[in-house]
Amino acid sequence: MQCTPGRPPNAYADAVDADTLDQAVAAIRSRGYYSAFPESPSPRVYGPDAAAEGQRAFEAWEGRAFPVSVPGADGAVATEKSPFGIPLGVRYPQVGAGGLDDLLTAARAGMARWRDAGPDTRVEVTLEILQRLHGRVFELANAVMATTGQAFVMAFQAGGTHALDRALEAVAFAHTEMTRHPATMVWERPAKGDPVRVEKTFTVVPRGVAVVIGCTTFPTWNSYPGLFASLVTGNPVVVKPHPRAVLPLAITVQTCQEVLAERGFDPHLVTLAAEAEDAGLAKDLATRPEVRIVDFTGSGEFGGWLESHATQALVHTEKSGVNPVVIDSTGSFRGLTANLAFTLSLYSGQMCTTSQNIYVPAGGIETDEGHKSFADVGAGLAAAVDKLLADEARAVELLGAIVNDDVLGRVERAADLGEMVLESRSLDHPTHPDAVVRTPAIVAVDAGGPGDPGDRPYARECFGPVTFLVRTADTSESLDLVRRLGHERGAMTAAVYSTSEPVLDAAREVALDVGVALSENLTGGVYVNQSAAFSDYHGTGANPAANAAYVDAAYVTGRFRIVQSRRPAPA
Amino acid sequence: MQCTPGRPPNAYADAVDADTLDQAVAAIRSRGYYSAFPESPSPRVYGPDAAAEGQRAFEAWEGRAFPVSVPGADGAVATEKSPFGIPLGVRYPQVGAGGLDDLLTAARAGMARWRDAGPDTRVEVTLEILQRLHGRVFELANAVMATTGQAFVMAFQAGGTHALDRALEAVAFAHTEMTRHPATMVWERPAKGDPVRVEKTFTVVPRGVAVVIGCTTFPTWNSYPGLFASLVTGNPVVVKPHPRAVLPLAITVQTCQEVLAERGFDPHLVTLAAEAEDAGLAKDLATRPEVRIVDFTGSGEFGGWLESHATQALVHTEKSGVNPVVIDSTGSFRGLTANLAFTLSLYSGQMCTTSQNIYVPAGGIETDEGHKSFADVGAGLAAAVDKLLADEARAVELLGAIVNDDVLGRVERAADLGEMVLESRSLDHPTHPDAVVRTPAIVAVDAGGPGDPGDRPYARECFGPVTFLVRTADTSESLDLVRRLGHERGAMTAAVYSTSEPVLDAAREVALDVGVALSENLTGGVYVNQSAAFSDYHGTGANPAANAAYVDAAYVTGRFRIVQSRRPAPA
Repeated sequence: MQCTPGRPPNAYADAVDADTLDQAVAAIRSRGYYSAFPESPSPRVYGPDAAAEGQRAFEAWEGRAFPVSVPGADGAVATEKSPFGIPLGVRYPQVGAGGLDDLLTAARAGMARWRDAGPDTRVEVTLEILQRLHGRVFELANAVMATTGQAFVMAFQAGGTHALDRALEAVAFAHTEMTRHPATMVWERPAKGDPVRVEKTFTVVPRGVAVVIGCTTFPTWNSYPGLFASLVTGNPVVVKPHPRAVLPLAITVQTCQEVLAERGFDPHLVTLAAEAEDAGLAKDLATRPEVRIVDFTGSGEFGGWLESHATQALVHTEKSGVNPVVIDSTGSFRGLTANLAFTLSLYSGQMCTTSQNIYVPAGGIETDEGHKSFADVGAGLAAAVDKLLADEARAVELLGAIVNDDVLGRVERAADLGEMVLESRSLDHPTHPDAVVRTPAIVAVDAGGPGDPGDRPYARECFGPVTFLVRTADTSESLDLVRRLGHERGAMTAAVYSTSEPVLDAAREVALDVGVALSENLTGGVYVNQSAAFSDYHGTGANPAANAAYVDAAYVTGRFRIVQSRRPAPA
Repeated sequence: MQCTPGRPPNAYADAVDADTLDQAVAAIRSRGYYSAFPESPSPRVYGPDAAAEGQRAFEAWEGRAFPVSVPGADGAVATEKSPFGIPLGVRYPQVGAGGLDDLLTAARAGMARWRDAGPDTRVEVTLEILQRLHGRVFELANAVMATTGQAFVMAFQAGGTHALDRALEAVAFAHTEMTRHPATMVWERPAKGDPVRVEKTFTVVPRGVAVVIGCTTFPTWNSYPGLFASLVTGNPVVVKPHPRAVLPLAITVQTCQEVLAERGFDPHLVTLAAEAEDAGLAKDLATRPEVRIVDFTGSGEFGGWLESHATQALVHTEKSGVNPVVIDSTGSFRGLTANLAFTLSLYSGQMCTTSQNIYVPAGGIETDEGHKSFADVGAGLAAAVDKLLADEARAVELLGAIVNDDVLGRVERAADLGEMVLESRSLDHPTHPDAVVRTPAIVAVDAGGPGDPGDRPYARECFGPVTFLVRTADTSESLDLVRRLGHERGAMTAAVYSTSEPVLDAAREVALDVGVALSENLTGGVYVNQSAAFSDYHGTGANPAANAAYVDAAYVTGRFRIVQSRRPAPA
């Protein structure tokens, strides 16, 4: 196996060990605030050299053949193109359909030994991997930034520390579920005379090879829960990155292979399956009989295909949705507009949790600043976005870059969709002149009255920085649209603003019916598009946007089985 | 809603209440011995009148229209035919494909109220249903006996008290998983100045309509875990019984409807979907978009169809397998043969857990009685079966009756399959002259040496009282066949007899690889075909015989989702 030279252990923070696990396990029960990986990239937290060292480590990959061991690979591919124009050209071992036999055989080779290591050892090794990845967090952050277009701090957090927290959350759930029964015990049934005694053992066995299919925008955050939930429960994992965002997952796989090998396990328990764009490897992989788990983030179309075709596997999908905000009334118009402006701007709205449709009654709303007409609400939102993004140097650190031409096309054609409330602007990036940076567009449209909203422009996902301000008859119609589109198209998030408890109750009822997480009256520093690991579930699995959540028990329990043996025990 | 007159509450045993739940929850963690429903039908346990009252209650249904409320039903069907020749002729509301809209609309009508009742109330109501069913346990036992051909005591236990224990086990798992997070809490993130405080609620929401597809042989035992796991987690349940075994589930649905109505919930949260034989209702139901959970027990063919076609639903299947016994050596030849004789005879081997293939080395085995040739082992087994069934009046209480003509045909043609070691005999039933009673047949065959065993007669499920004594080169070949057939055809149980720890270790390794529960050296009163609720998992989900287990966390966690709402909390 080809590996990079040994790295120093993570010197940044506390060790990720059994205490960490205990705290994480407590947090997933209490749902209280917890984080094991400090989210501030400040030198005060990570030391004066960490940022520069991480950047150098990232830059050293440029144009190189990435050293990761992939049986069955044939040749190399370099498929990445940075939305910031950051040079990449990293070459990865290429896996074609013809190499899958070798890849999957290698993946399975170490499975029995990894299973026999038992839950505690697997957890310990997985925590060591997380600690090692934390030691490379600045390198990871640069890789995430370069490939996804996330601005640096966001890449550090969402792509680094928050992703690690979600991974730890998955490990904590898995440990809890793998150890809820004793490994061995003696069962004793009362009987005439001596009781019947039977010694029983209960072994956690893996389901089989797991495939993780990554996305362009959140290669680590959306892949880590599935990757580490599968690995820690004993399954080999083949990581199939999106061709535009390989490096963050290549670094991840490399780290997994290093730690596994150091601990005496087969490094091919985690492998990377890179491919040329549109080579169709995910379909081939996901339907192989050896593959028993698939974790997917991406389009609704392909997610649906996986659900109905990869029937030999347990399939977890996070797809797409139409995220609603219902504005009924507010006690803080300024807070409301500022809060939503941040959500719409962050990473140019390229999050699966970004609000898309803001429903406002045609007659306007009551606020702490008096009555606001529909136009006033639009103007208030537009002004809040303008204010937030007034300083271009700071704006680019919030917006990041547009991830691909599809998103760019949608924002450039936003005027076709309705009446422009806020035009998107192109900004120059002060340090990355090739970066494609756009501010959000807001488009006013009519809800369209009764009847099927399915063919109206706002009724489909419009991924990226285009928000619909939807004019409804009243809040009741707004909620009805949330319900209908939630059931038909799905939603990852929903928000409501109202000073009326009956309206909030009605919104909660709709959210329960749709099965979508609801944020109520957020006017401060908590945003509808953000979720906190260990406390907030990401997705629910209850509507078409996703069939699973990060992280609940259902997300981990299907990844392993319990196999018992029993024999008579001496009296 | 049409209901039977009020019944007395269960006077038989302790109340099924919060204490019961606590004990059940403790048992599923410790895996220690526990039972909430006494398995002895003795008058000392259930009182002097219980048996006669239960029999009268059962007999009163003969030829009647069974009173259960089923929206969408059109006409009635009477499809049952007792293997004992016991008169039935009970008519049930018939559901055709044309009635499914009404049925599913009615099923969903009460869902929000049932959801809003919350986990604790749902558990309480479900425990009340179990207690009420326990109050009808003799009636249920007679219904199970009459429809399945199980002898009375087995019908009382497997069809009554053990089924109720498995139901309680599912409720205990579901309660644990539904309440692992707080219903509401305040999250507090440290921040500059005041902490950020957010009030969060977490609501368990049901997945959708659940369909339970019952089987002929264990209409209650195999249906209760799925039925009550789905109901207690908030889902409406449509029970689709096998046309030959409707009454036990009709009684069950009636009891559910009574308790739900008494507690102010919609009785149509549980309904019965009876159909004419071969009407194909299960396919229509299982693929409806409203149906989000399917629990199935039956053939491998239809189970596989459900797994690949009902992709809109979470599908749990228990199908078929080829259950192996490996005989390598033993310290108690008498114990071995007596133990296996009981397993082969119980309910004429018509259990999904009955051993089918007994692998014995051609050169024989070492035992406490000296060397036994292959023929000696067969003769010993045959003698043990003969001894167990020598008294015909007692034999019929173990054998029960042959459930249908397919099984009868297989046992009558057993001689075509190999060399007869033990002929099946036809017994007269002393009290049911029309009963079809057969003793088990044992057939010796050669393993067949290297190559694919897939087309040999012993390599496919041969459901019923036909056992193959398979002559192998040695124990190594025996284990190899367990592995190969386990992977290809599946197995619900496996057993090994050996005095050698290395052989036992090798058998354990094979069992882990196949993913099948292993029983080692059972020579006393514990049998490979029996599993104890709260301690033994039934099935694993890890091989083709079943994709789920009774009851582990994975069996319940997918039946509900957690939907949260959050709002800023006062400082």
